[in-house]
Amino acid sequence: MAHKYVYLFEEGNGSMRELLGGKGAGLAEMTNIGLPVPPGFTITTEACTIYYQNNGKLPQEIIDETMEYLAKLEEKAGRKLGDPEHPLLVSVRSGARISMPGMMDTILNLGLNDQTVEGLARESSNPRFAYDCYRRFIQMFSDVVMHVNINLFEGELEKLKEEVGAKLDTDLTAENLQELIKRYKEIVRKNTGREFPQDVKEQLLMAINAVFESWNTPRAITYRKLNKIPDDWGTAVNVVMMAFGNMGNNSGTGVAFTRNPSTGEKVFYGEFLINAQGEDVVAGIRTPKPIAELKNEMPAVYEQLLNVAKTLENHYKDMQDIEFTVQEGKLYMLQTRSGKRTPQAAIKIAVDLCEEGIIDKETALMRVEPEQISMVMHRQIDPNSKYQVIAKGLAASPGAGMGEVVFDADEAEKLAHEEGRKVILVRPETTPDDIHGLAAAEAVLTSRGGMTSHAAVVARGMGKPAICGCESIKIDLDRELFTVGDITVKKGDIITVDGTTGNVILGEVNFVDPTFSEEFTKLLTWADEVAKIGVRANADTPVDATTARNFGAKGIGLCRTEHMFMATDRLPVVQEMILAQTHEERKAALDKLLPMQQGDFEAMLKTMEGYEVIIRLLDPPLHEFLPDEMELALKLNTLKLTNGSKEEIEETEKLLKNVRVLKEFNPMLGFRGCRLGMIYPEIYEMQIRAILNATVNLLKQGVNVIPEIMFPLVGTQEEMKRLREMAVNIGKEIMDSEGIKLEYKIGTMIEVPRAALIADQIAEYADFFSFGTNDLTQTTFGYSRDDAEHKFLFQYIEKKILKDDPFETLDADGVGQLIKIAHDKGRSVKSNLSLGICGEHGGDPRSIDFCYTAGLNYVSCSPYRVPVARLAAAQATIRHK
Amino acid sequence: MAHKYVYLFEEGNGSMRELLGGKGAGLAEMTNIGLPVPPGFTITTEACTIYYQNNGKLPQEIIDETMEYLAKLEEKAGRKLGDPEHPLLVSVRSGARISMPGMMDTILNLGLNDQTVEGLARESSNPRFAYDCYRRFIQMFSDVVMHVNINLFEGELEKLKEEVGAKLDTDLTAENLQELIKRYKEIVRKNTGREFPQDVKEQLLMAINAVFESWNTPRAITYRKLNKIPDDWGTAVNVVMMAFGNMGNNSGTGVAFTRNPSTGEKVFYGEFLINAQGEDVVAGIRTPKPIAELKNEMPAVYEQLLNVAKTLENHYKDMQDIEFTVQEGKLYMLQTRSGKRTPQAAIKIAVDLCEEGIIDKETALMRVEPEQISMVMHRQIDPNSKYQVIAKGLAASPGAGMGEVVFDADEAEKLAHEEGRKVILVRPETTPDDIHGLAAAEAVLTSRGGMTSHAAVVARGMGKPAICGCESIKIDLDRELFTVGDITVKKGDIITVDGTTGNVILGEVNFVDPTFSEEFTKLLTWADEVAKIGVRANADTPVDATTARNFGAKGIGLCRTEHMFMATDRLPVVQEMILAQTHEERKAALDKLLPMQQGDFEAMLKTMEGYEVIIRLLDPPLHEFLPDEMELALKLNTLKLTNGSKEEIEETEKLLKNVRVLKEFNPMLGFRGCRLGMIYPEIYEMQIRAILNATVNLLKQGVNVIPEIMFPLVGTQEEMKRLREMAVNIGKEIMDSEGIKLEYKIGTMIEVPRAALIADQIAEYADFFSFGTNDLTQTTFGYSRDDAEHKFLFQYIEKKILKDDPFETLDADGVGQLIKIAHDKGRSVKSNLSLGICGEHGGDPRSIDFCYTAGLNYVSCSPYRVPVARLAAAQATIRHK
Repeated sequence: MAHKYVYLFEEGNGSMRELLGGKGAGLAEMTNIGLPVPPGFTITTEACTIYYQNNGKLPQEIIDETMEYLAKLEEKAGRKLGDPEHPLLVSVRSGARISMPGMMDTILNLGLNDQTVEGLARESSNPRFAYDCYRRFIQMFSDVVMHVNINLFEGELEKLKEEVGAKLDTDLTAENLQELIKRYKEIVRKNTGREFPQDVKEQLLMAINAVFESWNTPRAITYRKLNKIPDDWGTAVNVVMMAFGNMGNNSGTGVAFTRNPSTGEKVFYGEFLINAQGEDVVAGIRTPKPIAELKNEMPAVYEQLLNVAKTLENHYKDMQDIEFTVQEGKLYMLQTRSGKRTPQAAIKIAVDLCEEGIIDKETALMRVEPEQISMVMHRQIDPNSKYQVIAKGLAASPGAGMGEVVFDADEAEKLAHEEGRKVILVRPETTPDDIHGLAAAEAVLTSRGGMTSHAAVVARGMGKPAICGCESIKIDLDRELFTVGDITVKKGDIITVDGTTGNVILGEVNFVDPTFSEEFTKLLTWADEVAKIGVRANADTPVDATTARNFGAKGIGLCRTEHMFMATDRLPVVQEMILAQTHEERKAALDKLLPMQQGDFEAMLKTMEGYEVIIRLLDPPLHEFLPDEMELALKLNTLKLTNGSKEEIEETEKLLKNVRVLKEFNPMLGFRGCRLGMIYPEIYEMQIRAILNATVNLLKQGVNVIPEIMFPLVGTQEEMKRLREMAVNIGKEIMDSEGIKLEYKIGTMIEVPRAALIADQIAEYADFFSFGTNDLTQTTFGYSRDDAEHKFLFQYIEKKILKDDPFETLDADGVGQLIKIAHDKGRSVKSNLSLGICGEHGGDPRSIDFCYTAGLNYVSCSPYRVPVARLAAAQATIRHK
Repeated sequence: MAHKYVYLFEEGNGSMRELLGGKGAGLAEMTNIGLPVPPGFTITTEACTIYYQNNGKLPQEIIDETMEYLAKLEEKAGRKLGDPEHPLLVSVRSGARISMPGMMDTILNLGLNDQTVEGLARESSNPRFAYDCYRRFIQMFSDVVMHVNINLFEGELEKLKEEVGAKLDTDLTAENLQELIKRYKEIVRKNTGREFPQDVKEQLLMAINAVFESWNTPRAITYRKLNKIPDDWGTAVNVVMMAFGNMGNNSGTGVAFTRNPSTGEKVFYGEFLINAQGEDVVAGIRTPKPIAELKNEMPAVYEQLLNVAKTLENHYKDMQDIEFTVQEGKLYMLQTRSGKRTPQAAIKIAVDLCEEGIIDKETALMRVEPEQISMVMHRQIDPNSKYQVIAKGLAASPGAGMGEVVFDADEAEKLAHEEGRKVILVRPETTPDDIHGLAAAEAVLTSRGGMTSHAAVVARGMGKPAICGCESIKIDLDRELFTVGDITVKKGDIITVDGTTGNVILGEVNFVDPTFSEEFTKLLTWADEVAKIGVRANADTPVDATTARNFGAKGIGLCRTEHMFMATDRLPVVQEMILAQTHEERKAALDKLLPMQQGDFEAMLKTMEGYEVIIRLLDPPLHEFLPDEMELALKLNTLKLTNGSKEEIEETEKLLKNVRVLKEFNPMLGFRGCRLGMIYPEIYEMQIRAILNATVNLLKQGVNVIPEIMFPLVGTQEEMKRLREMAVNIGKEIMDSEGIKLEYKIGTMIEVPRAALIADQIAEYADFFSFGTNDLTQTTFGYSRDDAEHKFLFQYIEKKILKDDPFETLDADGVGQLIKIAHDKGRSVKSNLSLGICGEHGGDPRSIDFCYTAGLNYVSCSPYRVPVARLAAAQATIRHK
């Protein structure tokens, strides 16, 4: 049997998204559950793949199959494509597996030519409508399929309007439109060297090719990159009988959501335009009316639509985003899909659907992307602060962003990425070509378009604050400014966009931490019930630890003691310690540091009462605590050339000499981590003493604390063995002198490949391993993160040499393999060895999934990532059940 | 049954070296094959271990067992320890598994006290002999066992000689010696607070303890570290009936080798002293006579000795180092062991024994240490150069060394290690306390001692040039100079020591490459026949490649192209290329480099005709080709402060800016290796073109060459895939345009852990892997070699945190595990994948052994290491048969 590349809607169903694309699968499913869908068929995504394999040409067999299905469509519709009496008109629409809104091309009204337009005029008894359809079709087809500059058509339209004294498009008569069609065809002839195609089957095939081509436009490629959609998925093509929303005032078109996509509230939500075609709504050119008003304008249709919405939500068990057209009072459903929603809405809808009994807890947990958890944790404007609201628009995507005004997407990207500046992208409206600017901006502000405009949809997807349709601002792109009343805001001025309220604010404002909805808390509580991998936090200060605990962290996975060393009141003592020439001098400095560290640890441990707290001993190379060599050398040079004081010269010389002794070619791989503790044991002895003294003090106060002493950068068994001995000896000494029993654990970071490879040897002397995946990634790849990113890493990701940034998402193939080796070898020696991860990957959902499958006990991440990690932990557990 | 800790010589044999030590096993074996050995017994090395486990005390059961065996010895000897009439005297000697000459203590004449000395006097009818033995015993016992400063005894001896007007020791009468004994006992009393022990069993036990203690003297520890002997092996103790070589002119003592230990020549070789005890020969105090003269002095003994030598050599199938004593015409064998020999001798003896049919080829190959091969490759003095020979001594250890004269071992070590200066250690004689100075010096020169003196033996073991017994030089240690006739050589003056001829030369001389003996060539030819792992060389220039080929390299394992970039005529063009602001500028510079590189490759490939040559494309970070940032910054600062020309300031500023753009925090892990080739493909394209063009030119000349293109630092499959495509495309293009078929291979270094971990993925696109174990060691351990060595690595080795320097000997546990993973994964995809190693480990015998077991096809090392590697390759093959 020949392979099948075309499906009637009746032949497909909702589960065939991969083959039919999202739109095609939705149309098929709706057809099958009896909803009013115009007849049509879908050419599969496989055909698209073949199209590209075949150097951008459809094989004859697919063309033949398409024609066969066209005949079936004609039979269903009772009309034929190109029939002068009863012409069938169709839309040709793209539809990938995953919605890529506005990214690819659509052609409406296909099938019109000089003959069929007359038939349409006769049938509709509305010649003006027919000619308007035809001129729109020529314009759209020429633009999308034949690549004629669309501005030529717009210019001709304006010119004609001027000639005949028409103000609006609707002022043009049928005759005017006939003249316009003539001129449009002339434009096509001039710019393409051929006639506008009159053969309707040729039109259809050209349109199908064009949709396939649109899969690889730069903007589509950018969108896929941003959304991590594989390039080889391809798009399907849907050929659907036209339903006309522009047949007069009993016609119309709209888009709606079964629940509010911004808040998640359970209300039918959307917009419609009377006497319009579908693209008009999405394009944001006319500002549409709220869907509630349809109840007044077309009560029966509204009622029918509400039922359809309910049917669809129950059927799909999720909030749906639907498109519909009303042709002379008759409702046609043109699309249904899972609706994009704000993170807030995603959480609320998931929890609500669960509590309404439509989905279970696990499904609810899987419905929210972990990153969405992060997005609702975005800061908000401090309600107590004073600020000047200069305009109000639609609250299109919640959260608040502040930055310099920029009017161009390219510039927004440049300033943000190359200069690290925070920018707000301000545009009349956005198009798919602006995506990179949206991605780079803190927030977006548009003067046109509604809640479903491009800017609004994309910003919500990105979790970026957006205000749309803010009509009171007047944008002057040429002069790069906008005005509101008598206020002028120029490029570079600071504004704040509050996407939660729609307020545009002049200047900077204070932000505050967000408050969390009841549903947020509920969802994370469910997550904790389900998750079989724990979540701890990386926290260096009691403040961070408190935040982490409030966000649900169950313990500290990494407390970096060097941050305590860097505090301004301690740095001089630390430098004293480093520059000490004798053991005694070093000891004296360490004696001063001991009580400071002890205080730090007491506070940390107390905050995390009842949970385990891993304290990592000093890790960075000592020169990080000293002044910069270059600065000192230049200072010395200047002092010498400008007759500086002999004393100062000598002092600088001495310091420079010391700095140079400690200087390293590759500090990442140098004298740091436990190597410091092996060569200068007195440093680690002081830290261990501080930890255990702190524990004793707290235990005496009745505070139940469990410190875990972690040695960084262990790479040999001997290091682990001797360091363990060091800690155990100090522990014994303290227990003896205090007459108290201390419970504590001793472990190490696994952050060089060798540690993973000899994990069995190390595990003999360690109670726990914590995978330091930042350094482990650096050493496994041989990438210095500081050097790699701008020199080649970003280009590697751009060019797909690397699928992901290995510093963001754990490299399962390489680093992950080491983790598995360490897991297997470590547990082979000590079955209760505790395993966790404390690199930045600990907060990355995909990495958390890996950690779960690798058998780790917990992940540890920054306090603000803890809620994200809790959800990701639950999802990993569910996914691998 | 109780554990046995003591063995009569009759109970042991030569294979029990681990238990009985080398000396004990030799005595047992000689006893068993019927050679004349005095009766005795051995306390095992296990007893030594127990002694240390027992906090430096022998358990009672071992004491009891010793006394039981003492009784057996007494029975065999027909005398009793402490018997006033027929006293048994014994020597108590250490003997570890491996000979540690002079490192540990020996006590002779034990059993003498105020009573037994009279018995000895009566029995020998030689009171002077008896008292001399007693005073020697007191002196030796007090020094070694009771730690009395030996100079006190020497001083008293000199004082007495003055008092009685004696010039030589032998001028002292029996009465003088009795007086001396009295005074010696007084010294002991004063300095230890106790009497010299008269209880002979107490003497014995104290002596045994002292021998065990001597295992852990600093000099013994140093020796073990230098010779990589484990600390926990311990020493055995041999208690042997005394044979007296000092009983008059029909007595004597000597040491001999069954073949010449310096040249390997098959002649009986050694030295003896008439009327002396054994230690006198080794200590080098009296210069002994050549063994050949014994033929005249004691013809029967000489004949007997020759037979013994022959028996022993045939028995042990190796050259033996023997010690003997003649007591009143009767020969006693006191030791036999495999003789230490110069590397030259080792090679000759192994080859000769094989050709004499005593051993087979494989045994011959195992008889030479690979490092000995390296030693005979030491440079020699240019025979055509003119130089001033100021003295001639014994050619004690061959090779030539040049350096500053130093008279103190500590100073020699300091100058050599801390300041990197070349020194010659000049001493009257050396003692075990001087070992560290010998190790640090280029060569050693002594004015006393023979071919078997401490300096000679140790220097030969180290492969270090030595001249001994050079009596014409008069050393003045206080003034730090020596004189020869009217020439004075002061500390710091340059001399040259020619250990091959015995010539001491004033000043510097030219050295030449060594010539190689017939046996050297023969042994390595045998090695090649046996070895199942190949040897290639790392060579960057045609000169190096020629050297490598002459040394037997079968191909080039690594040709580093960056060395070609560094040539002074090219560096400016390379800098042009690096600083290019556009692709075109870069291309222009590369076009200039292309013919230069092509010429390099042509010469390299031609030299290695018929063998594979791996050319590695550019590897180091680009900033290595640019000026130093610090220098530029200081220059700029100076220019600005001193009103430098505006032009120069601007130029320096520009260059500094460029240098800073390329600057890296951790260049080891930065923008280098194939990352350069991925981001600037034009660089690699030029190099590939140069390689393939060179190949075409040579093929056209009928020269058969096989280039292998190697991409450094690959860590992902995509890199390998795309780089392979790059090479293949250029290859196709050249083959098409030249109409010629090219054979070439494409592969990668495995030098980051990830490459090993995903070797299966990489192997899909690679024909070969070359393990770059220098970088792989750096990344696996997380050690930057440049930083680690002086900051912590040497201390790690010193403190035994690391057993070996992982940059010298491949770390089998960690790095080796990655090599095995890469081997298994790589070959799982491509069974004929060629695997080699090109890090410095490729020339290290233990690492070569590992590479063989890991299944590698070849090792590649520096040209001068090739012969070493060839032998090591054969040995690995034999060892793991």
